[in-house]
Amino acid sequence: MKKILFILLLLPVVTTFAQNKVEKWHIFELTLKGTSNGNPFTEIQISAEFINGNHRKTIDGFYDGNGIYKIRFMPQETGTWNYVTSSNSKSLNNKKGSFECIAPTGNNHGPVVVKDTFYFAYSDGKPHYSFGTTCYAWVHQGDSMADLTLKTLEKGYFNKIRFCIFPKDYDWSKNEPLIYPFEGKPLKDWDYTRFNPACFQNIEKRIAQLDALGIEADLIVFHPYDRWGFQNMDAQTDERYIRYIIARFSAYKNVWWSMANEFDFMKAKKMEDWDKFIRLFAGNDPYNHLRGIHNGAVWYDHTNPLITHASIQNEETYRSKELRMKYKKPVVYDECRYEGNIPWSWGNITPQEMTNKFWRGITNGGFVGHGETYVTENPAKWPSESDDVLWWSKGGVLRGQSAERIKFAKSIVEQSPGQLSPYPLFFDWMPFSAVAYKDEYILAYLNLDQPKSAFINNLPKNATYKAEIIDTWNMTIMPVENSELKGTVLIQLPQKPGIVIRFKKKDI
Amino acid sequence: MKKILFILLLLPVVTTFAQNKVEKWHIFELTLKGTSNGNPFTEIQISAEFINGNHRKTIDGFYDGNGIYKIRFMPQETGTWNYVTSSNSKSLNNKKGSFECIAPTGNNHGPVVVKDTFYFAYSDGKPHYSFGTTCYAWVHQGDSMADLTLKTLEKGYFNKIRFCIFPKDYDWSKNEPLIYPFEGKPLKDWDYTRFNPACFQNIEKRIAQLDALGIEADLIVFHPYDRWGFQNMDAQTDERYIRYIIARFSAYKNVWWSMANEFDFMKAKKMEDWDKFIRLFAGNDPYNHLRGIHNGAVWYDHTNPLITHASIQNEETYRSKELRMKYKKPVVYDECRYEGNIPWSWGNITPQEMTNKFWRGITNGGFVGHGETYVTENPAKWPSESDDVLWWSKGGVLRGQSAERIKFAKSIVEQSPGQLSPYPLFFDWMPFSAVAYKDEYILAYLNLDQPKSAFINNLPKNATYKAEIIDTWNMTIMPVENSELKGTVLIQLPQKPGIVIRFKKKDI
Repeated sequence: MKKILFILLLLPVVTTFAQNKVEKWHIFELTLKGTSNGNPFTEIQISAEFINGNHRKTIDGFYDGNGIYKIRFMPQETGTWNYVTSSNSKSLNNKKGSFECIAPTGNNHGPVVVKDTFYFAYSDGKPHYSFGTTCYAWVHQGDSMADLTLKTLEKGYFNKIRFCIFPKDYDWSKNEPLIYPFEGKPLKDWDYTRFNPACFQNIEKRIAQLDALGIEADLIVFHPYDRWGFQNMDAQTDERYIRYIIARFSAYKNVWWSMANEFDFMKAKKMEDWDKFIRLFAGNDPYNHLRGIHNGAVWYDHTNPLITHASIQNEETYRSKELRMKYKKPVVYDECRYEGNIPWSWGNITPQEMTNKFWRGITNGGFVGHGETYVTENPAKWPSESDDVLWWSKGGVLRGQSAERIKFAKSIVEQSPGQLSPYPLFFDWMPFSAVAYKDEYILAYLNLDQPKSAFINNLPKNATYKAEIIDTWNMTIMPVENSELKGTVLIQLPQKPGIVIRFKKKDI
Repeated sequence: MKKILFILLLLPVVTTFAQNKVEKWHIFELTLKGTSNGNPFTEIQISAEFINGNHRKTIDGFYDGNGIYKIRFMPQETGTWNYVTSSNSKSLNNKKGSFECIAPTGNNHGPVVVKDTFYFAYSDGKPHYSFGTTCYAWVHQGDSMADLTLKTLEKGYFNKIRFCIFPKDYDWSKNEPLIYPFEGKPLKDWDYTRFNPACFQNIEKRIAQLDALGIEADLIVFHPYDRWGFQNMDAQTDERYIRYIIARFSAYKNVWWSMANEFDFMKAKKMEDWDKFIRLFAGNDPYNHLRGIHNGAVWYDHTNPLITHASIQNEETYRSKELRMKYKKPVVYDECRYEGNIPWSWGNITPQEMTNKFWRGITNGGFVGHGETYVTENPAKWPSESDDVLWWSKGGVLRGQSAERIKFAKSIVEQSPGQLSPYPLFFDWMPFSAVAYKDEYILAYLNLDQPKSAFINNLPKNATYKAEIIDTWNMTIMPVENSELKGTVLIQLPQKPGIVIRFKKKDI
């Protein structure tokens, strides 16, 4: 039985330091030395006002342990920013300085925001087509495993990952984390008034590493898979925790806030608690990062105006078309069952079906998330007794076959000149679905069915199209011979499951 | 372009003849010579009263052309039956006789009836597990094609077939029938007061051939795929037609009455018309054959007490469990999409998915029907211009791969000691489903998922079970090593789609 946990060494930087130049959407971090007496977490308030012409932001700082205080700021405007600190501790108060915010470079497109009701885009306008995955507890498995996870993510399958801030107790995830979020001793002897900075430093290191890979960090604030008591903290602790993670994490441009995973499975929390949490993020995150809440069995009412996008658990990804109209928001099927082989039915679909769920979501105007749950022990053990490392829980390597197909799907979607919305290419009563960017770029998906030909009766008649047959499983793209398509056409197909027909409008 | 139609020669038997001995549930047929003057169809009434002790049945006869009148009777009681005819034609009136009804032999189990609310059984009590197929217009394709169809059916894939009495006009079914149901000329110049006996003789020949193969004939009385006007006949003609087919066909023990295919697509008919038709069959069929009505887009309310079973068109066969409770009747998914490759989405699912739909229906307490729609022309033609012979429409040969798997499924179900009802073997939230005969014979289906192991937590604890892994696609049955299963168990699986676990209670 291999233990795959390694000791994580975290050495906090204690120099008082701030940069002179910071790219727009990168982090300006002010580090100050102050008192470590008493309980700085509860007794010391620190913030700074940042001013650049008419732009003003008040940013809360946080205590990072060992007498170190930090204020993190993500400038959203170029130019000179002046700042001045405020604190009830004299040594931290009225510290002044300035820095230059310069234009973004390279792959820095800023935080993802909602655009045109149903879509995501980076702050510079570049479309963001969400292709997520899930590794709930990957940040709690030590450096070696985290490095392996990052090496997997480097391959570019996904541009978002969902994970928990708190450690996770569940089948295939029974190991203790190396660092706990509070001072104290496991299992439940915590001093909830004192955070453990090392735990949060580790998480922000991971957030930064993800950002370097162009991957959004969908942070799960609360979750019910818990033996340490973190799902049952009192209201004051919950709020202090939320303010602390806002102060620490919100300057990272790739952060999304997910209030919970399976919020309805957290029996200690009532709907008014969730309302309060959502208001806390909406009112205190200076950058208004995306806010979602993810359901278990009970659907959340995503019409809540403070929720930015619908984060859905449900296997029927083709219902994106209906849900986007219901919620008037981007629809993200963050969990629609996982590719794997575990006995639990949410984690044993085939790679073909995982790929299919992506394409059904995409071609109905939604976004879909991946997860992978392969056990390798032979014979398979009881879930609660197994040491298997499953991607969905701990990260590591991918054993499945859908990730490559999702990467392929991502490339097809990213070739679109713009965001894709449902397009009436087929008869209403057909289960096939299509999306298009205007009339220019159309993707029509024929599910796992095997037609030998497709009848298309709605191609615009005032233009001509060329078509390609995309095999979403074999990842091939074949041109259709007739390249002067318009109006009503019969397209010959290879009679295989998982076919997309791509129509591109020809330049006139 | 091959024409696959052949001339059908039908020579009516004109001898006046009746048998001395008839097996229970076989046909006693009395043939009488009478007038051919005027219009015998509308002017001559003929019936007979059959008496065997306390058992009395009044049976309507029919005119079979050429001055021949027939009275067909299916005795349901053994012993001596005496009869006497009644007619407004003197030469047909007061004819007397008798015959001996003897015990059934061989495969004669009598008509299928509803048993214990949710199930079918033959009249002798033998369970009937419905495994149907669909060849709408097979009786209208001539003898050669019909023989080919029967040769295919001989292989034992199915025990029911749905087909239309009237000819069919639809994609891949544009040829004229060889015989029309009325006197007159195509397309629409019909004398609706005069049936064409040859048309009905051909159909009853097919019904008898099916019966010899142990196949139920699910006769579709009306349908909307029509260019001849038969879907728009007036109320009087409809009623005359219904009385005529009851008189002709109801003595065949394997007859089921399906009021319509896609009743809601027949715009000329109103709900009260369907009510009337259903009442006509319920009131006039002396044997109370099964009565269904099959929907298109609009669901029929199968709680109608004169409807014997719910004949459903819908792809979600797993909803059998819910529908049987809703309707308190047997649920038959007569159309749940077909295995094939046509552009229409109802006819292009894979053989894997067709097989899956059967198993999902079976393990949710329902019954499922097959259909096959493979085109062979290369390149595929427009549906309205193709001469392809599709099983679903014309019969012939099967090109798909699901029929063999359905036959295999049928053998597994038929090995049950009794009818199978939904069984709570899995957690409610799992999409897997199970059925059982009492606690003795349990079939648990894991869909097209690929678990490496299955967690069973509801096996009865007061008995032990042996288990087998059934691969529904490869049609293999492998024993599970541990044969002392009870209570909560983890079963190792081959990690393939389409697995059934069969549990058999061990003899104590």
